[in-house]
Amino acid sequence: MYGHDAFKTVAAVSTPRGKGGIAVIRISGGDTAAILDKCFRPAGKPLAERPFRTAVYGEIFSPRGVIDTGVCTLYEEGRSFTGESMAELSCHGGVYVTGEVLAAVFAAGAEPAGPGEFTKRAFINGKLSLSEAEAVGRLIDADTASRAAMASGAVRGRLSSAVGKIDRALLDVMTALYAAIDYPDEDVGTEGEDRIAEVVEGSLAAVDSLRATYKTGRAVADGVKTVICGRPNVGKSSLYNLLLGEDRAIVTSVAGTTRDTLEDTADVGGVTLRLLDTAGIRETSDEVERIGVERAYVKLESAELIIFVADRAEPLSDDDRELMEKIIPLGAEKILVLNKSDRADALTEGDREALSRFERKVEMSCATGEGKEALEREIAKIYNEGALDLSTDAVIWSAAQRASLDRTAELLSDASRAMREGSPLDAVGVMCETALAELRMVDGRNVSEDIIDGIFSKFCVGK
Amino acid sequence: MYGHDAFKTVAAVSTPRGKGGIAVIRISGGDTAAILDKCFRPAGKPLAERPFRTAVYGEIFSPRGVIDTGVCTLYEEGRSFTGESMAELSCHGGVYVTGEVLAAVFAAGAEPAGPGEFTKRAFINGKLSLSEAEAVGRLIDADTASRAAMASGAVRGRLSSAVGKIDRALLDVMTALYAAIDYPDEDVGTEGEDRIAEVVEGSLAAVDSLRATYKTGRAVADGVKTVICGRPNVGKSSLYNLLLGEDRAIVTSVAGTTRDTLEDTADVGGVTLRLLDTAGIRETSDEVERIGVERAYVKLESAELIIFVADRAEPLSDDDRELMEKIIPLGAEKILVLNKSDRADALTEGDREALSRFERKVEMSCATGEGKEALEREIAKIYNEGALDLSTDAVIWSAAQRASLDRTAELLSDASRAMREGSPLDAVGVMCETALAELRMVDGRNVSEDIIDGIFSKFCVGK
Repeated sequence: MYGHDAFKTVAAVSTPRGKGGIAVIRISGGDTAAILDKCFRPAGKPLAERPFRTAVYGEIFSPRGVIDTGVCTLYEEGRSFTGESMAELSCHGGVYVTGEVLAAVFAAGAEPAGPGEFTKRAFINGKLSLSEAEAVGRLIDADTASRAAMASGAVRGRLSSAVGKIDRALLDVMTALYAAIDYPDEDVGTEGEDRIAEVVEGSLAAVDSLRATYKTGRAVADGVKTVICGRPNVGKSSLYNLLLGEDRAIVTSVAGTTRDTLEDTADVGGVTLRLLDTAGIRETSDEVERIGVERAYVKLESAELIIFVADRAEPLSDDDRELMEKIIPLGAEKILVLNKSDRADALTEGDREALSRFERKVEMSCATGEGKEALEREIAKIYNEGALDLSTDAVIWSAAQRASLDRTAELLSDASRAMREGSPLDAVGVMCETALAELRMVDGRNVSEDIIDGIFSKFCVGK
Repeated sequence: MYGHDAFKTVAAVSTPRGKGGIAVIRISGGDTAAILDKCFRPAGKPLAERPFRTAVYGEIFSPRGVIDTGVCTLYEEGRSFTGESMAELSCHGGVYVTGEVLAAVFAAGAEPAGPGEFTKRAFINGKLSLSEAEAVGRLIDADTASRAAMASGAVRGRLSSAVGKIDRALLDVMTALYAAIDYPDEDVGTEGEDRIAEVVEGSLAAVDSLRATYKTGRAVADGVKTVICGRPNVGKSSLYNLLLGEDRAIVTSVAGTTRDTLEDTADVGGVTLRLLDTAGIRETSDEVERIGVERAYVKLESAELIIFVADRAEPLSDDDRELMEKIIPLGAEKILVLNKSDRADALTEGDREALSRFERKVEMSCATGEGKEALEREIAKIYNEGALDLSTDAVIWSAAQRASLDRTAELLSDASRAMREGSPLDAVGVMCETALAELRMVDGRNVSEDIIDGIFSKFCVGK
């Protein structure tokens, strides 16, 4: 599956680009020690005489002379991040000096590491499961508390351990089944078959639990396309600022390269809201009023969550009602925000009735922030119904994981039915074996090289 | 000199800001181990049971839960970069996760490190001399091969060891002098006095050698304000591109915040040329031709090095001669570049004679690059007359170092004269003692806190 070339000794700067006190160059592969001999001179005893995993001070040199002083930590094969013989060489974190040190490491025989190559090698060498490895990239990219918590949980094996538990249960089932098939004379008996069926059903329940985390995981990882709408002056901007406010430092305004809209990301209610083109919505308020809501509708129709803001301190206007009529039929999740809860309620009985068509309602003051927690709870109810703790619970986040688990569940359900209906055990065995293979697509070994390359190619060099 | 406050346990991210595989958080001070107990949980044995300087894998946590997994290396007091109990905590290099880990370290009791605080502590604790510490900052900022080589040499103690040698010689002299003064009955004798005078003169020679490196050190560290001039179409742009070309990747166009010009930096002939506002010069060619060279002259007058380019393939024009007349009287260093050496020489005898007023001349082709080495040699002759090897020779680079050495030399010269003239030994002793104090301003301990704070405040946080 992986040619010999994949195991050349490679090196890259693993710390971020730019100036800093320290930069770390990672070297991984069988020739690591030999390469260090040609570019690192320890003060005192040679590296070979030091214990592994010990920080050793020395000079970093190239054939042209000494470049810098630094610290080298050599990890033995099997006990490093990548699982290979590996070293981390710290030097002074200047852009130029770091480049010179990397060049010296290349001159000593290392080859440039590809994107995500260290993490990929860790996966190939069994140091990280696939979901753990993928989560490394997500953790590095994480820009909100929820994203960081979920990725960190996965890096620390929360998903892997849940999948692993199901994996072991199914292996047990198959051992029992194959024993029964191979030795038909030793009848497993009704009791034995019941036990097998129970384990299969227990596994199915565990798979279903994992499947149920997808809505939350996806809402964190991909984010929820959210549009805040309402007629002019109901407080859309205030709500927008309120949602972004606390996390202002980690808000990113991305000019979409593949989409044609701007969006801001906010961590609200433990999930990620992608506030679509809100600047545009604010600017087009007049347009909405004057020439209709055509432009806004395009955004509304692609939204997954619509927050409809109405002003509680005034009776509903025709504009409010017209917009509501357009929104209600849309498939998105919807939350009604009755703004200006700090002022006298001027809604009529008829207004209240019209607004009751929204299933979810929050009364709040977007200006003072009062009631923000209620909105967060409402969002959490939609996207984290199971009240998952992202950093400690097993959570899946990708459509591919979900699809594999769907197929696993279907096969286990078939296997369970077949058991209960007394179908031949070898048919059940095939179903369970296929289910196990599908399960392992989530986090296992039998993933094609294409998929693996796809995952790691999204990493940066140095990871 | 340094209050107790200076030794609080501090922490900062020491790697560059941004995304990467790894970020390193440095913690330094007496409470380092206690702080780690509150935010790092080793896999396996507690940190206290591990040898120092060993990379230990574990979980990084805050009161709210586990944030990340990482590697912690704890250094014992006296054997760390800062000289204090110190740790380097590696985590995944995401912007968000790094911030969370740093916050956890603060929550565990560390205080934010100030700019350059780790290096400053290394200096205060005697792990780095002043010049070594200052060079750490220069190495991190270095953007050219020469700057990196000079800073790396200084970081590795090349200047410190040269200064230290003079320091020890002067201490010996003073021991001998004070012995003679304290025990006047035991006459040191002519021979003893001659020996003292020799050591003083040897020290003076060594100080003079160091002083002589200033021109080179300054040309590397500060760079040489350089203007390329000549009438239109003689090849100024080609020369400019040629000088920047090889180092294109490390060229920085800085919009001066304190100056009102743009400049590009190039490593040429082993020194740093600051090519002043060359874009401007290229644009103002017509202006030079039409309304005179007024604007260019302002730049020429502030230049330290003027490279006058003439076209060898045509006889000199009136423009050439007029510009020459303006340049020759200026105080800057000047180099004549006779461009287009790849074409037939069309200069007249008279032209050659006029051009002979330039002491330094290079015939080259700015377009093909032929003769570039000759220009580099000419520049090296001006700024590195002693052919210093920047990474292995002791070099001074700052006006303050130069001023201290000037005063040291003056005092040693006085002391030498006083010895030879038979002045009282206690007068000589005072001169030598003052000379030693001056010498120690270059690299020693008796530097005022103001000066030290000035040096380290230019550092970034994390160094």
